[in-house]
Amino acid sequence: MNEILTKERLIEARERISNQVKRTPILTSSSINKILNANIFFKCENFQKVGAFKFRGASNAVLSLNEKEMINGVATHSSGNHAAALALAAKMKNIPAYIVMPKTAPEIKKKAVAGYGAKIIFCEPTLKAREETLNNVIQETNAIFIHPYDNYDVIAGQSTAAQEIFAELNDLDFIIAPVGGGGLLSGTALSTKYFSPKTKIIGAEPKEADDAFKSFNDKKIYPSINPKTICDGLLTQLSEKTFKIITNTVDEILTAKEETIIEAMKLIWERMKIIIEPSSAVTLAIMIENQEKFLNKKIAIILSGGNVDLKNLPFK
Amino acid sequence: MNEILTKERLIEARERISNQVKRTPILTSSSINKILNANIFFKCENFQKVGAFKFRGASNAVLSLNEKEMINGVATHSSGNHAAALALAAKMKNIPAYIVMPKTAPEIKKKAVAGYGAKIIFCEPTLKAREETLNNVIQETNAIFIHPYDNYDVIAGQSTAAQEIFAELNDLDFIIAPVGGGGLLSGTALSTKYFSPKTKIIGAEPKEADDAFKSFNDKKIYPSINPKTICDGLLTQLSEKTFKIITNTVDEILTAKEETIIEAMKLIWERMKIIIEPSSAVTLAIMIENQEKFLNKKIAIILSGGNVDLKNLPFK
Repeated sequence: MNEILTKERLIEARERISNQVKRTPILTSSSINKILNANIFFKCENFQKVGAFKFRGASNAVLSLNEKEMINGVATHSSGNHAAALALAAKMKNIPAYIVMPKTAPEIKKKAVAGYGAKIIFCEPTLKAREETLNNVIQETNAIFIHPYDNYDVIAGQSTAAQEIFAELNDLDFIIAPVGGGGLLSGTALSTKYFSPKTKIIGAEPKEADDAFKSFNDKKIYPSINPKTICDGLLTQLSEKTFKIITNTVDEILTAKEETIIEAMKLIWERMKIIIEPSSAVTLAIMIENQEKFLNKKIAIILSGGNVDLKNLPFK
Repeated sequence: MNEILTKERLIEARERISNQVKRTPILTSSSINKILNANIFFKCENFQKVGAFKFRGASNAVLSLNEKEMINGVATHSSGNHAAALALAAKMKNIPAYIVMPKTAPEIKKKAVAGYGAKIIFCEPTLKAREETLNNVIQETNAIFIHPYDNYDVIAGQSTAAQEIFAELNDLDFIIAPVGGGGLLSGTALSTKYFSPKTKIIGAEPKEADDAFKSFNDKKIYPSINPKTICDGLLTQLSEKTFKIITNTVDEILTAKEETIIEAMKLIWERMKIIIEPSSAVTLAIMIENQEKFLNKKIAIILSGGNVDLKNLPFK
């Protein structure tokens, strides 16, 4: 399936991180099943440490370093869940973490990352400034760069959410994961091919940020240009590694409208009493927009995270 | 412990409702444990059907009726979770449910009850009007009145949440449940005495609605007069049955300030990514206000429900 991310490497990743990552519950909702006429299993990565699946990949990346590689710490640029995830994974190994963040990042995210003991380096809010600042940090510190998704250890870590699903559930017709940079979808797809090969793999993306949809269908990477979506975790574009895995393994990428994403988010909050971020809701949103396809099917959905600003919710 | 609600009757209740009630998960939060220096287990009745533990009691009450008693249906007056719970429990047995609600009840609650197929009879928003209207309904329909908490089958049903806790956890130092009318606290306390007699039982109540606190300490039932609390599920007062059980079994009732209740609610939303109603948060709030008492202890908390208006949240 993938010559580098073999089945054995995925299993090793799961063993490596099992002591520090939460085995999150899989929840069901009879009322959502009734509304959509389907049998849906929600893997609650919103309950994961730091509130998102990202802690799996960051943990596997940090724990895969040898003592010598580890000594100068790790670095990344991110204003989102990967920043907090890497900061916590580094803290748990007692190594430094350097996080380059745009100075415009929300206060709540700066505080979370600082709370895990990481050193934050602020930069202008452009990709160029981020990359330059990160390069400077790495030159000065010799820290190891952990890319949020263009990194095999990160992808192997993200694969463990789906591995846990297949350890509990058989005969799934579909598995659905959101797609931004493609780390979660890549890991999910590889897990599925190795552990449940009959299950169809679907990526879910906001229509207003449909670069992965286009990249998948045209077989070339499109950049993500000015995406206008509430899904703040899905603004990035595929990388070389995730593009290759996704085009080789995923069955389909479906997109959903902003209003359907908010409707799906509200449905999950109200019926399941759990807090998910908009980027997680896009999975249920594509089901709402494609009900025929999923009629009476058995489906696993990965709820990727639960980090939202409670003072600024999209419900009307 | 109680001559009517024997250990056997509690066990029977659990068996009776096990097919239609959700066995809710028990979740933990390492960050809340760290903040409070305690080992807390949260029983998630916010994930229960209709979004509250009330479905346990209503289910046991309905399923305890014989065919003849059942034929004319059930009735109650409530604008809260018991109304929805009884409506659903009746619907699952295909019998009519008559719910007397104040015409001022929130639209969302009217819709929920109607959505379960119950017949709603509106009345003026006074206790007198409620009781008169209910009596009229019962005379007309011969339906059986299921009181929200002054009813042994209801209390036995509520006891099943704690029964499930003790089936999973040993050596608990404390179990904490919110107290309004006292149905949940009574059932929880009896379960604890029968299944984990060394565990101390604590009722949690808003300081602004502390009639149970006073009733417990003065050994006489105080009415709940104009309570001014965000905990809309805890406005009622103890009944004869719950007062007797609680004074015989509960170790202590503690109260918490409104601001602490909101702080506790926010902590659970943000750290655990689950939606609870304010009435559930009073349990963690008393822990926040009495940290010494719970230092390094093993504690079960019953999160009673998750029905909130997402457009009107108390977070600032």
